[in-house]
Amino acid sequence: MRCLSKIFQPVITIPKNAKIKNTEITCKSQKLLLECGLIRPTGPGLFTILPLARRALDKLENLIKSCIEAAGGQRMAVPSLTPATLWDKTGRLQEIGPELIKMEDRHGKKYLLAPTHEEAIADLLADVGPLSYKQLPLLLYQISNKYRDEARPKHGLLRAREFSMMDAYGLHEHEHCARDTYSALTDAYHTLFRTLQLPVHRVEAPSGDMGGPLSHEWQLPAPAGEDAVTVCAACARALPQGGACRTCGGDTAEVHSIEVGHTFLLGSKYSAALAAHCTPSSGPPAPLYMSCYGIGITRLLSASIEALSSDKCLRWPDAIAPYSICIIGPKEGSREWETHGIASISQLYETLEPARPGDVIVDDRHHLTIGKRLMMADRMGYPYIIVMGKAALSDPARYEVYRSCDVTASVQLLTTTELLELLSHKDSQRIKIKNVY
Amino acid sequence: MRCLSKIFQPVITIPKNAKIKNTEITCKSQKLLLECGLIRPTGPGLFTILPLARRALDKLENLIKSCIEAAGGQRMAVPSLTPATLWDKTGRLQEIGPELIKMEDRHGKKYLLAPTHEEAIADLLADVGPLSYKQLPLLLYQISNKYRDEARPKHGLLRAREFSMMDAYGLHEHEHCARDTYSALTDAYHTLFRTLQLPVHRVEAPSGDMGGPLSHEWQLPAPAGEDAVTVCAACARALPQGGACRTCGGDTAEVHSIEVGHTFLLGSKYSAALAAHCTPSSGPPAPLYMSCYGIGITRLLSASIEALSSDKCLRWPDAIAPYSICIIGPKEGSREWETHGIASISQLYETLEPARPGDVIVDDRHHLTIGKRLMMADRMGYPYIIVMGKAALSDPARYEVYRSCDVTASVQLLTTTELLELLSHKDSQRIKIKNVY
Repeated sequence: MRCLSKIFQPVITIPKNAKIKNTEITCKSQKLLLECGLIRPTGPGLFTILPLARRALDKLENLIKSCIEAAGGQRMAVPSLTPATLWDKTGRLQEIGPELIKMEDRHGKKYLLAPTHEEAIADLLADVGPLSYKQLPLLLYQISNKYRDEARPKHGLLRAREFSMMDAYGLHEHEHCARDTYSALTDAYHTLFRTLQLPVHRVEAPSGDMGGPLSHEWQLPAPAGEDAVTVCAACARALPQGGACRTCGGDTAEVHSIEVGHTFLLGSKYSAALAAHCTPSSGPPAPLYMSCYGIGITRLLSASIEALSSDKCLRWPDAIAPYSICIIGPKEGSREWETHGIASISQLYETLEPARPGDVIVDDRHHLTIGKRLMMADRMGYPYIIVMGKAALSDPARYEVYRSCDVTASVQLLTTTELLELLSHKDSQRIKIKNVY
Repeated sequence: MRCLSKIFQPVITIPKNAKIKNTEITCKSQKLLLECGLIRPTGPGLFTILPLARRALDKLENLIKSCIEAAGGQRMAVPSLTPATLWDKTGRLQEIGPELIKMEDRHGKKYLLAPTHEEAIADLLADVGPLSYKQLPLLLYQISNKYRDEARPKHGLLRAREFSMMDAYGLHEHEHCARDTYSALTDAYHTLFRTLQLPVHRVEAPSGDMGGPLSHEWQLPAPAGEDAVTVCAACARALPQGGACRTCGGDTAEVHSIEVGHTFLLGSKYSAALAAHCTPSSGPPAPLYMSCYGIGITRLLSASIEALSSDKCLRWPDAIAPYSICIIGPKEGSREWETHGIASISQLYETLEPARPGDVIVDDRHHLTIGKRLMMADRMGYPYIIVMGKAALSDPARYEVYRSCDVTASVQLLTTTELLELLSHKDSQRIKIKNVY
């Protein structure tokens, strides 16, 4: 039985206006993640991810993996330590300049800690020699820590200096093949955000210094966002700035938003600079046409919390909550405790575990009242909170079921059969937490 | 259907005595991993892990995760960028000196890229405040890239400068509790290496500068190893140097070996220096008693290849081979091809897939002969190679089944029913590859 008392979750209370490691608390997700014992800063823009947040991150990574692999992605891993000469060749060593973390090895050779890997991928393909057009398109991706020496790291995981990112690179013979991959990845992103039930908007963006003719930002509306997106109040579509919605004619509003992903057609900027060629079906070798796709994983985790949570209570996309189900047994010494005790808790745990394997936790701090533990579970945002209250003594036993996503306003009293039925539905009716204690 | 022709596997042939990125090819695993298109150097001691090796690494990571979590480990993640001041406090900034990769951020603050995280974990626990004895023992672990500026990186992934490592940290009230955790982790390591079917020896080791009273190295015998272990020729136990085997009296021999893991009782060296305390059941707060446990993941991957492979052919522990099953269909234009063609290949794939979900690959390079593809599959070391040769036309169809681990010397001819039966046994009889073409 997985028990909450065994989990390392150093809960703290942050006094108003207090600084943590010289950093101001500037947004909801930062405060909640810190206070609930999910992350801990180790320096400006640097965070230890504690066990419960690490579980959420595992789930998010697996979800991203499956979406990218369904689009044909092959996972690989490029070193973070990147020779500075590669970035010199594309001009980005100067362009990105102070945001790059640079160092020398013991022989004086210069490296940087990569924030992204267009150069490294182009260099790999140059090293491998011209790919035949028959081997294309190719989609390589990795999930790894990236580095950016932000002048002012802020908002916790939303703008960190070491962060987890999925970066995928498409390699193509022609732009039109790259557009096919771009479209497949666009679908993969939509699938991901739909699974997370997050209203992420795809917004046309300037390509900036990246090189190519097409680029989109993927923006999640949230008050702490440093970007902005214009959305239609009626149909919730993202729009170019200004004017009414062309789809439904509704009013538009500009809202703050967080960039959680980016997609680019890159053209041959990197492949030409680093001599990454392909042998086309006819004609001489030519630079590969590249595209690239990024999702900030630690940023998406905190952005989803920023978008879904209240000031007091964490809310997660169901698919990535640290545990799906939290069981709260009776208080030690209560009538329910005396009648059934720990055996009935363990029995309920064993019954529910197969419905969410490895994903059920018991709040075994039985010296605390049910009400106190329910309040804490609500604050943590477990999608299903199951309380063994008075009705657990009736025959058949009934459990109080609270959903952390509020749609209606009452608690359900369910038998184990009904509970298993509820858990078998993916989009079961959601019930608002209302602490009855 | 997963097809080999779509996988990015840049196979090369390395001429004798050739250097790759200024690095000599000094051992079998390095040569095979490079030649088979599994890794690619990006600089001295730096490697891109290509898709097939990344799959093997995923499997190995998952196996390690499950062993460490079964022993009570909670996964977390500490940043790689570590403030240099922390290492100054324990004296290791000087001690390890040139092996540390160091840098300054844009504000001139000094950091290092951590090769291990005793300081960071002690600092975290100091920051969290004294843990109550009731919260102990605690076992925190992570899987992440570590960094070491090796003077002479060599042997490919065996001695790299950026490498993947599992590091776990035990936190205890007393030494005797630490010994219990040490014993649980020892069991976890034994389970891991047994699952990998690797003869890893646990050898008592001096603690060196690490601090504590007890330490073991976990050594895998292999000719390229830079360490040595004395083993009994009769019972295969590791022994202290010199003398006969005390268990069975057999002769002993010293063999080269590779350190794939290390376990330490640390005492309070780090917790005292960094003020990481616990509140014991009685008495004032005192430094935590720490233990730590490491497994070099990329090193273990290459060490297992070093130990199991021949000069010509890769061999993996079954549990981590990039794919479990490789299907080789008939050559285009052959009688078998004309009779059944691609439909029968896809049918066999669908039949076998459920036995090894996501882990079956088809060598769809049908323009190549079966013999050529069988030779390549043997070189790659897929645990099961299934050839649709002449007998696939008989009724019922029979397939040639080759096992990459050689025990007997013949190929088996099996129907799909027999094949599924074979795949359902974990320790099925192993059959030596013998190319009959």
